[in-house]
Amino acid sequence: MDSQNSQTKGGFTLPGESGYEKLTLDLAQKWGADVIRDSDGTVLSDEILNSGYGIYSTICIIRDHNAWAKENMDKLQQTFLMTQPKIAEDSYLTFHLLDDFFEEQFMVNDSKASMKYWQVFDRTTNQEVSSNFWTYEKEAGNVIVNNVIPWHRYTVSFLAYRIWEEISMYNHTTNNWDKEHLMQIDPIYPETQEYMLTWLRNWCETHPATTVVRFTSMFYNFVWIWGSNTRNRNLFTDWGSYDFTVSPKMLENFAEKYGYKLTAEDFINKGNLHVTHMPPVKTQLDYMDFVNSFVVSFGKKLVDIVHEYGKKAYVFYDDSWVGVEPYSNRFKDFGFDGLIKCVFSGYEVRLCAGADIETHELRFHPYLFPVGLGGLPTFAPGGDPTRDAKEYWNHTRRALLRAKIDRIGLGGYLHLVQDFPDFVDYIAKISDEFRTIRDLHESGAPYTLDINVAVLHSWGKLRSWTLSGHFHETYMHDLIHINEALSGLPVNVSFISFNDLKTTDLSKYQIIINAGAADTAWSGGDNWRDPAVEEILTKWVYEGGTFIGVNEPSAVEGFDAAFKMSSVLGVDKDTSARVCHGKWSYEISDVNGLIPEGSNIPERAHVHLTDGNAKVLADANGNPLLTYNEFGKGKGIYLSTFETTSLNNRLLFNILLFAANKPLEQDYITDNPATECAYFPANKKLIVINNSDSVQSTTVTTEYGKKTFNDIAPFDTVIVEL
Amino acid sequence: MDSQNSQTKGGFTLPGESGYEKLTLDLAQKWGADVIRDSDGTVLSDEILNSGYGIYSTICIIRDHNAWAKENMDKLQQTFLMTQPKIAEDSYLTFHLLDDFFEEQFMVNDSKASMKYWQVFDRTTNQEVSSNFWTYEKEAGNVIVNNVIPWHRYTVSFLAYRIWEEISMYNHTTNNWDKEHLMQIDPIYPETQEYMLTWLRNWCETHPATTVVRFTSMFYNFVWIWGSNTRNRNLFTDWGSYDFTVSPKMLENFAEKYGYKLTAEDFINKGNLHVTHMPPVKTQLDYMDFVNSFVVSFGKKLVDIVHEYGKKAYVFYDDSWVGVEPYSNRFKDFGFDGLIKCVFSGYEVRLCAGADIETHELRFHPYLFPVGLGGLPTFAPGGDPTRDAKEYWNHTRRALLRAKIDRIGLGGYLHLVQDFPDFVDYIAKISDEFRTIRDLHESGAPYTLDINVAVLHSWGKLRSWTLSGHFHETYMHDLIHINEALSGLPVNVSFISFNDLKTTDLSKYQIIINAGAADTAWSGGDNWRDPAVEEILTKWVYEGGTFIGVNEPSAVEGFDAAFKMSSVLGVDKDTSARVCHGKWSYEISDVNGLIPEGSNIPERAHVHLTDGNAKVLADANGNPLLTYNEFGKGKGIYLSTFETTSLNNRLLFNILLFAANKPLEQDYITDNPATECAYFPANKKLIVINNSDSVQSTTVTTEYGKKTFNDIAPFDTVIVEL
Repeated sequence: MDSQNSQTKGGFTLPGESGYEKLTLDLAQKWGADVIRDSDGTVLSDEILNSGYGIYSTICIIRDHNAWAKENMDKLQQTFLMTQPKIAEDSYLTFHLLDDFFEEQFMVNDSKASMKYWQVFDRTTNQEVSSNFWTYEKEAGNVIVNNVIPWHRYTVSFLAYRIWEEISMYNHTTNNWDKEHLMQIDPIYPETQEYMLTWLRNWCETHPATTVVRFTSMFYNFVWIWGSNTRNRNLFTDWGSYDFTVSPKMLENFAEKYGYKLTAEDFINKGNLHVTHMPPVKTQLDYMDFVNSFVVSFGKKLVDIVHEYGKKAYVFYDDSWVGVEPYSNRFKDFGFDGLIKCVFSGYEVRLCAGADIETHELRFHPYLFPVGLGGLPTFAPGGDPTRDAKEYWNHTRRALLRAKIDRIGLGGYLHLVQDFPDFVDYIAKISDEFRTIRDLHESGAPYTLDINVAVLHSWGKLRSWTLSGHFHETYMHDLIHINEALSGLPVNVSFISFNDLKTTDLSKYQIIINAGAADTAWSGGDNWRDPAVEEILTKWVYEGGTFIGVNEPSAVEGFDAAFKMSSVLGVDKDTSARVCHGKWSYEISDVNGLIPEGSNIPERAHVHLTDGNAKVLADANGNPLLTYNEFGKGKGIYLSTFETTSLNNRLLFNILLFAANKPLEQDYITDNPATECAYFPANKKLIVINNSDSVQSTTVTTEYGKKTFNDIAPFDTVIVEL
Repeated sequence: MDSQNSQTKGGFTLPGESGYEKLTLDLAQKWGADVIRDSDGTVLSDEILNSGYGIYSTICIIRDHNAWAKENMDKLQQTFLMTQPKIAEDSYLTFHLLDDFFEEQFMVNDSKASMKYWQVFDRTTNQEVSSNFWTYEKEAGNVIVNNVIPWHRYTVSFLAYRIWEEISMYNHTTNNWDKEHLMQIDPIYPETQEYMLTWLRNWCETHPATTVVRFTSMFYNFVWIWGSNTRNRNLFTDWGSYDFTVSPKMLENFAEKYGYKLTAEDFINKGNLHVTHMPPVKTQLDYMDFVNSFVVSFGKKLVDIVHEYGKKAYVFYDDSWVGVEPYSNRFKDFGFDGLIKCVFSGYEVRLCAGADIETHELRFHPYLFPVGLGGLPTFAPGGDPTRDAKEYWNHTRRALLRAKIDRIGLGGYLHLVQDFPDFVDYIAKISDEFRTIRDLHESGAPYTLDINVAVLHSWGKLRSWTLSGHFHETYMHDLIHINEALSGLPVNVSFISFNDLKTTDLSKYQIIINAGAADTAWSGGDNWRDPAVEEILTKWVYEGGTFIGVNEPSAVEGFDAAFKMSSVLGVDKDTSARVCHGKWSYEISDVNGLIPEGSNIPERAHVHLTDGNAKVLADANGNPLLTYNEFGKGKGIYLSTFETTSLNNRLLFNILLFAANKPLEQDYITDNPATECAYFPANKKLIVINNSDSVQSTTVTTEYGKKTFNDIAPFDTVIVEL
């Protein structure tokens, strides 16, 4: 394990492990760590605590309180659930409420306060059945619905306590733990708050070695509903939605503040729930704002206690992060000192880097676990953690070049790396690279083109960079590919909502991107019904802006065109209603060098030219894939979809240059699209990265002439001074 | 050309040609013709007229009256047109109305009666602009709209005369004719009616040799709007829609009868027009019914004249057939003696055979034209009309086995066959086969399984068998493939509407098929919002019926499930809203022999199992393609899409047997799916057909034991007596 030590030190958080003190301290040195942390399932021994390193301690304020939880089962966290629809074959129907759900996760909340929120729906007509017509059999856990209409479909929505904290449930199940299930307590109750405040004070008293308290995270987990059947264990998962914050108490408090009451159906939404990928509705936005205000106000009290003890407070941007919202205006009110994001991808680096907080820290993958999130081996026979680490570094590095991150680190069980010496070496190497990049940022910003790109979607700034969770969870959406590409490009990127269009001076943007399937949050859904949106964007293009639409941009039903921006784009979607309409024929036009060799545009939406004026730059099977349309002084550009790869990222960059009326040849851009570079003028440092798994050479035009880099090793980084 | 003569005679209509009298009479003998006809662009000489054959004369009652038309330009036929949308960059907009349209086809109707129907729409808000804000510049042909909202999109809808009869325009253009453009006159005016009646009497007087007057067809062509730009000549084509019937007079008459007024927008429909593939709306159905009643009532007067002269009257089921509606209840009121359908496919054979009329005649392809409908050579260098004829015979023959057709024939220019002796022989061969099949039908119906299949869609019986036009025009719709497969299967097929569900005893059907994309006429669109539809079908399945859903059956938005029949089918569509929901895993189930080797199910819709109970019989990439779900005594069967091929037709047949709870092995079914057979019990005749282009053998189990047929030539027919 001695082959490579880090040359520099700091900005690295190492997961320590009791029983492996020597390994912990050795690796802390090899990787240049300045901080040692514990992990879920590990503790640090005194030898480590007293070794002179900073100490991060993870606390999960809502779990590990089973004794209190058992005495306060009415203060466990909850969620609304809806049964599978049942068809009435007779005049009554019986629902065993938990039939569809994992019984170790849920327990029906049949308190009076809860039951007033329960709802039975006739889903054939989508009308609620009066509570006069149904009864609850407490012992059996059944709802009996009477006077149903034969052959209609019915559902029951109810409140359930969550009796197994989900992250713990996942770790427990994945690692085959044999221990008590941890429950999660809900800070919405004054008693819970009092308990938590006391507990935290006590914790701080008894953990003098801890320099940073890492909250994992605040109170409410992202939604993760498990099913009763192992053939369908994962019923619903959404990193960004608020269903797990709900309780009668939260709903009462909401009604008091907002003057109207939410119902189960406001959450259940016909069984769809409100996934982040759908355009949010007003009740949902109100409720999110309300929960956020509660999480911040009570969270601040906890942070204050940590500060009282002279420790710093960091928060983890995953797990029970719901309500924390680092991109909300309230985030700074917490008083947190640091934000830690677990990352696979470049956009997640930017997500962390963009939050308004002092310290931005990344938790790198692979985690030191036997298996990865997808269930494949990592630190186990058949795994290749070094290959994984290279791949993730390759994705994250280009974003690290664009935005400053202060710290990196790992998580998990340190002893697992013992059998993987090349992994240990590789981490030493990239830790140094990270520190070099960080230091360059500290001296001054990297060279960036004066291109301001706004990504327009329903959430705007609140969901900057991420859609909802990791790349592999959202890869089916065009926009995550675009965000990932943008995360490493030398342009300025903002995320704006449809409301922002009305309150922002759009002339600062050269480019606005709207990318997504119809009726999603990303294309915008009903937001496009507002004529002001079309007016503002059309005028902005006419005056010189470029609107880039991907897949089904500006799609909404009920108008003459499927895309509200069809006249600007010069293309519109082929709907069923258009099947008898003829199509404009076209020749393929060429914008020299725009489409890099080896890049590709997959076919997703099917479109036709509206008035025949749009130029088609690429097509497949007679379906335009990339088009542009001059409109006034500006342009509409249409792209069927986008898939992030090194070469496709360069295609997108070229499209942005074309959109901004700039030459495709630019200083400080590599001439080989398998490579990228960043130039830090303050230090005259040029960093060239090979994004590919093969040797690459490239030339960069600089103000000091052309610089050629020959034979850069796969995935390697070259740093030179000009 | 002497190698093969027909062995039998009759039921064959030959297109004669002046100047080729010997050829005409020779071929009449070789093909067993009993009738000689003229074609568009040909006349028959006295030698032919007096040759002792029956004589069909084609008349197109609305064209070839240019002298009268020129004096009555206000009585030409019309249509509504909508300009391309224009974006307002200022406070006014100018539209040159005919900019987008083929100026040889249209002329603005700016009469006072017409202009009161014109409409200007703000398409950004989809609101009409008051006529106070726009003016028409007659000389320039421009509409000027004032006080527009900048950056909104506007359109103008107006009435135009059609000044070139479309079929003539097509033939003229295709054959590079150099003659006067023929106009079409509109019988809605009493003056036109009087002219036509007089003209027809005179025609009958002067055509004593004619035994059958073939109307081509009645008055109103299917919609065929040509554009100004050769890059987009074909703006809109729909074989089944009624836009070309419109005129101020027709609209006035309609308003008088129905008590409400139609507007341009009732036709323009945001520029989509009302394509047959979309669910019809009430105003459209009212209007169609009204036009149909007019066409029948005036058409009957013409037919009566023909009959007065001792001639028969046949009508052509294409071209200006709109308003004729052979599947409407009024059709028999015309008094027609025959219906002639031009066919490429089996479903078109059934379309003709199913009409309530004495004589059903098919016009076979290829037409005797240098090029086919698709523009490829037929009777021209590079063409292979025999190959084409075999292919079409192969498609139509299996339907001829199921339903009786009385006559066949060809159209076009006879002299073109001179260079294609093998074509002449082949027509002789299949004419004999046709007559044999026809005679068998006359002795009694072929053996058919007691399986009654209803195809459920928005149009019901009115659009039995066809969707709108030929197969190559509608191949993108699932249902045409299913109809084509059904056209040759030994089951009983009905076409029913959503209204029929409420008024029909469904217990006579074992199977109901609903097949199509969401929001089309074929899946049914908003018809599914009616809870009665779901109730009736669910109950019917529960009691033993099988509902087969293809692609997006019962799809309608706004409910908990994308498919209203999801609980019966056990599957539902993957919508954007479901992207965070987990999916049931499944094993592939097997129903022995159901899926023939070599058959395939293309992937179209993406679905998931609803409650995990449906069995998956085929999938692709984790997407179920064929599933079944037990429900009560019945079943829901889901199919991703269907593509008609010989082997896939057998797959569909097997699915029908499975749906009807019948064994897959049946008497009088070939055991080789590349072949099919029909058994006519009255004559004990078994006809086996090879649907493939290679030699095939097959065995058929009969009540007299197993019969084996070895080495049937490609596309050949074998007829044996048991």
